Amino acid sequence: MSNPSILILPGDGIGPEVMAEVKKVITWYGAKRDLQFDVSDDLVGGAAYDAHGTPLHDDTMAKAQEVDAVLLGAVGGPKYDALDFSVKPERGLLRLRKEMDLFSNLRPAQCFDALADFSSLKKDVVAGLDIMIVRELTSGIYFGEPRGIIEEGNERVGINTQRYTESEIDRVARSAFELAMRRGKKLCSMEKANVMESGILWREVVTEVAKDYPEVELSHMYADAGAMQLCRWPKQFDVIVTDNLFGDLLSDAAAMLTGSLGMLPSASLGAPMGNGRPKALYEPVHGSAPDIAGQGKANPIACVLSFAMALRYSFDLGEEADRLEKAVEKVLADGVRTADLLGEEGVTPVTTSEMGDAILNAL
Amino acid sequence: MSNPSILILPGDGIGPEVMAEVKKVITWYGAKRDLQFDVSDDLVGGAAYDAHGTPLHDDTMAKAQEVDAVLLGAVGGPKYDALDFSVKPERGLLRLRKEMDLFSNLRPAQCFDALADFSSLKKDVVAGLDIMIVRELTSGIYFGEPRGIIEEGNERVGINTQRYTESEIDRVARSAFELAMRRGKKLCSMEKANVMESGILWREVVTEVAKDYPEVELSHMYADAGAMQLCRWPKQFDVIVTDNLFGDLLSDAAAMLTGSLGMLPSASLGAPMGNGRPKALYEPVHGSAPDIAGQGKANPIACVLSFAMALRYSFDLGEEADRLEKAVEKVLADGVRTADLLGEEGVTPVTTSEMGDAILNAL
Ligand SMILES: CC(C)[C@H](C(=O)O)[C@@H](O)C(=O)O
Ligand SMILES: CC(C)[C@H](C(=O)O)[C@@H](O)C(=O)O
Repeated sequence: MSNPSILILPGDGIGPEVMAEVKKVITWYGAKRDLQFDVSDDLVGGAAYDAHGTPLHDDTMAKAQEVDAVLLGAVGGPKYDALDFSVKPERGLLRLRKEMDLFSNLRPAQCFDALADFSSLKKDVVAGLDIMIVRELTSGIYFGEPRGIIEEGNERVGINTQRYTESEIDRVARSAFELAMRRGKKLCSMEKANVMESGILWREVVTEVAKDYPEVELSHMYADAGAMQLCRWPKQFDVIVTDNLFGDLLSDAAAMLTGSLGMLPSASLGAPMGNGRPKALYEPVHGSAPDIAGQGKANPIACVLSFAMALRYSFDLGEEADRLEKAVEKVLADGVRTADLLGEEGVTPVTTSEMGDAILNAL
Repeated sequence: MSNPSILILPGDGIGPEVMAEVKKVITWYGAKRDLQFDVSDDLVGGAAYDAHGTPLHDDTMAKAQEVDAVLLGAVGGPKYDALDFSVKPERGLLRLRKEMDLFSNLRPAQCFDALADFSSLKKDVVAGLDIMIVRELTSGIYFGEPRGIIEEGNERVGINTQRYTESEIDRVARSAFELAMRRGKKLCSMEKANVMESGILWREVVTEVAKDYPEVELSHMYADAGAMQLCRWPKQFDVIVTDNLFGDLLSDAAAMLTGSLGMLPSASLGAPMGNGRPKALYEPVHGSAPDIAGQGKANPIACVLSFAMALRYSFDLGEEADRLEKAVEKVLADGVRTADLLGEEGVTPVTTSEMGDAILNAL
């Protein structure tokens, strides 16, 4: 049997720096745990635009379809702000999500004990927080047609379409229920069924799917109330399932609340491939942070933990994922901090690469 | 000249209770400050549905169009959950907003000194917070066509349309710039121009309007980053302008962050009428709180402060608005607390009506 394959797309800004540390971790798993991966590298986002005039080359897209997992760093930067919508760095990422049909985006919002003080929230509100937001990722207003800017009368009109089919809602709901079964068996679905018909359908389908998961306690919340409750007492949640756009805002807010933003990974999963593994892309929740790019200041932990999610969800190596996550926790408990995690005593920050080395040591 | 007219729509849940206290305040202004208002009362939401089978009777709609200001309590409750979408309590409120063309929704997120401890955020993050969110209220995905649940192939599809014309963006942007001029001269506009064409148009039009307000420092932020930044360091903002749906989530999150949710008013303003006053509706940010309705536990302050906004924005009585706001601050500083504001020492909560009386005394 051939080795599992991984396509690495470092992307822009701090992407290449943090991904370099992940590569060290992958090498460690090969040398020390005899887990060999076939790793290849390619471009995405602004980096791909600079090389090919497109944020995702067709060849790269084809490769992504073939590998067992894609690891992505981050895309975007001010350099590309003036580009046309169709070739902006983000379009590369959105194309990957859409064409790989990665409908289920798992975004853990977890507060690391050693970092609870970093949150803008009170310590008791966030300490020990561990929730999972499941965001629909291939449909909704991100992709619905018609869309565009049209002329009407003597002015322009900007149009986007929110569109959800029953089967699109069904499959992401199932993935959320499955996760809830392996966690605290509580699922909260968020939409605006009081205002949007697509939200009514969303609520109906989720309620229907719930019949297949009688052990899971399902609740529904309007997304605005959900935003409030996340800010008030996030520990009331276990798993949250919501649509693409609400998921974008709510998961970012939740990530920020933990105080561990530079630490949070994500997984985007699709349907099982021939080998039983789901189509999958893993990426940190943080962005490309152009302001600190190239300075060795970036925190590689979110990207390393994204690889841990790959071990768990793509390669069925839950114990190895645990090992890596524990190593990260140990490093943090030991007081090792990149610059983004300072603010306390007179700790001296380590570089991106030193943080990677510390994780290898802890492994 | 006839007295300014006010239509009171108490609505559902705690709406009637909190509105009773506003009526006392209005009476006080008549008796003590010789400010007479012609006040009439009518039904909205579930209350209107119970009486007429519709959440807003046409006669009520017609009255709302004629008065100088509408004061609304709150709509909705579990009793009406099973109703058809078209007659749900919320439709009454949405019809008022749409037909009165109340395009500019002002939602202050303010942290009352006496209540900073109530926030789930750290005290230094919220103490003294005073930002204003301007939410577009009559367009976007709340009202765009096509919408509905249709059959396609052998499944149902839920559809809503985000739609913004240049002039719709222009007018709400202007109202936000005007507000910024009277405040800290900083405006942040939020959209998802990296994903949605309607966001691109939004950003372009706001940038264009900015030319007429050279003194205002304009910035742009993606709405997901905006949600993060609101949770991280809300004091970085002065005025925020955003669309209907983003405004719904972001203003609720911001309101919750202040720890003063039961305290926050809102104003929804339209174009000037013949008499120069804008079409206007004022309502608390909180909902109908069916769980505590009818028990004298509700906090009337948000509703009272909504009347203060009416004094300022509809009746050009800024000094009287200040007076009322100061009275509320005094009552809070004196330690008077409704049940929602407890949690500290052994303070005994006052009833809704006692809080109203305390405000009258402070006036
Ligand atoms: C970069 C952008 C297109 C993307 C999104 O809006 O989905 C990002 O915000 C995210 O959440 O992954
Ligand atoms: C009640 C509901 C229709 C309304 C909205 O979504 O606009 C509410 O959440 C609000 O923010 O005023």
